[in-house]
Amino acid sequence: MIYAQLHLTLPAWIHDEVDGQRLYPDAESRIALAIQLSRRNVDHRSGGPFGAAVFTGEGRLVGVGVNRVVPHNCSVAHAEVMALATSQQRVQSFRLNQSGERYTLATSAQPCSMCYGALIWAGIDQLLIAARADDVQQLAGFDEGPLPADWKGELENGGIQVRTDLMRDHARDVLRDYGESGLVY
Amino acid sequence: MIYAQLHLTLPAWIHDEVDGQRLYPDAESRIALAIQLSRRNVDHRSGGPFGAAVFTGEGRLVGVGVNRVVPHNCSVAHAEVMALATSQQRVQSFRLNQSGERYTLATSAQPCSMCYGALIWAGIDQLLIAARADDVQQLAGFDEGPLPADWKGELENGGIQVRTDLMRDHARDVLRDYGESGLVY
Repeated sequence: MIYAQLHLTLPAWIHDEVDGQRLYPDAESRIALAIQLSRRNVDHRSGGPFGAAVFTGEGRLVGVGVNRVVPHNCSVAHAEVMALATSQQRVQSFRLNQSGERYTLATSAQPCSMCYGALIWAGIDQLLIAARADDVQQLAGFDEGPLPADWKGELENGGIQVRTDLMRDHARDVLRDYGESGLVY
Repeated sequence: MIYAQLHLTLPAWIHDEVDGQRLYPDAESRIALAIQLSRRNVDHRSGGPFGAAVFTGEGRLVGVGVNRVVPHNCSVAHAEVMALATSQQRVQSFRLNQSGERYTLATSAQPCSMCYGALIWAGIDQLLIAARADDVQQLAGFDEGPLPADWKGELENGGIQVRTDLMRDHARDVLRDYGESGLVY
């Protein structure tokens, strides 16, 4: 028998946690939401310590994601993939910026090997990152996988502006708390 | 409003096309199925010219995938992701080989940047590839994205054996036919 369906969900608490009406006008407010989602995902035991969110150029929230790997038995269900894919469902386009609108992905930690590729195809114009790959490895014990040597330059060459270390300490706090919790999400 | 669901499907013809009962004992029979799926996906206008399949060590079929990016408006829905994720749903594990069983992913073309990372996390032991990235670019016009310089060595170091150029001409035929068809899946 072939399994022909894949059904992934965000946890129910997302709807209470996220204000989809307000504007997120700057990098700080956008990365703060990604980090808040990573924190809440650990609090609620609904997945690993990672959060991400997609915004339009002016700061409207398009979609959010948290890590859902363990609850869904799905190694693809990283926060960035969930945020990008649900945003594409909302916009009804497999390339978010095909319409000419600009899009930003904010993520609580540097994207892994898979999410790095996923964000290239998703149609975003800007990537905001809080924690570094080293933080993820050292504090939470997750491997981020191999990347091109100049991973940031490859993104910039493809038209995706990259900003790193945004509210890094806050993101590190979540990773550290997770690492010390003994949770295995 | 937040979109909190992602629902991806394989096309209905999959159930008629794939024999889930037979054994696929060797690399050739496994890669032949991946290429057959890539061909049928073009024939049925159900997505891009890519197919993939997951097998146990002895050659039982675990899951299959075809490209579903355009039908689902989802840039994540590559053949390898669909095959790996539906296989994980069947096995009910986010890491296929966690049980000690060995798994092979066969794919009609070299995995792109995203699928490269996805297969690292999925828990496979062997990767079988038909067409090269250059074939995909030149014949079908798809960019495969940036990879680590020694992408194959990184996989081998991680315990994933890689075989390339398997039935490459057959896979190239599908990509060429797609490229000449004018289809934009």
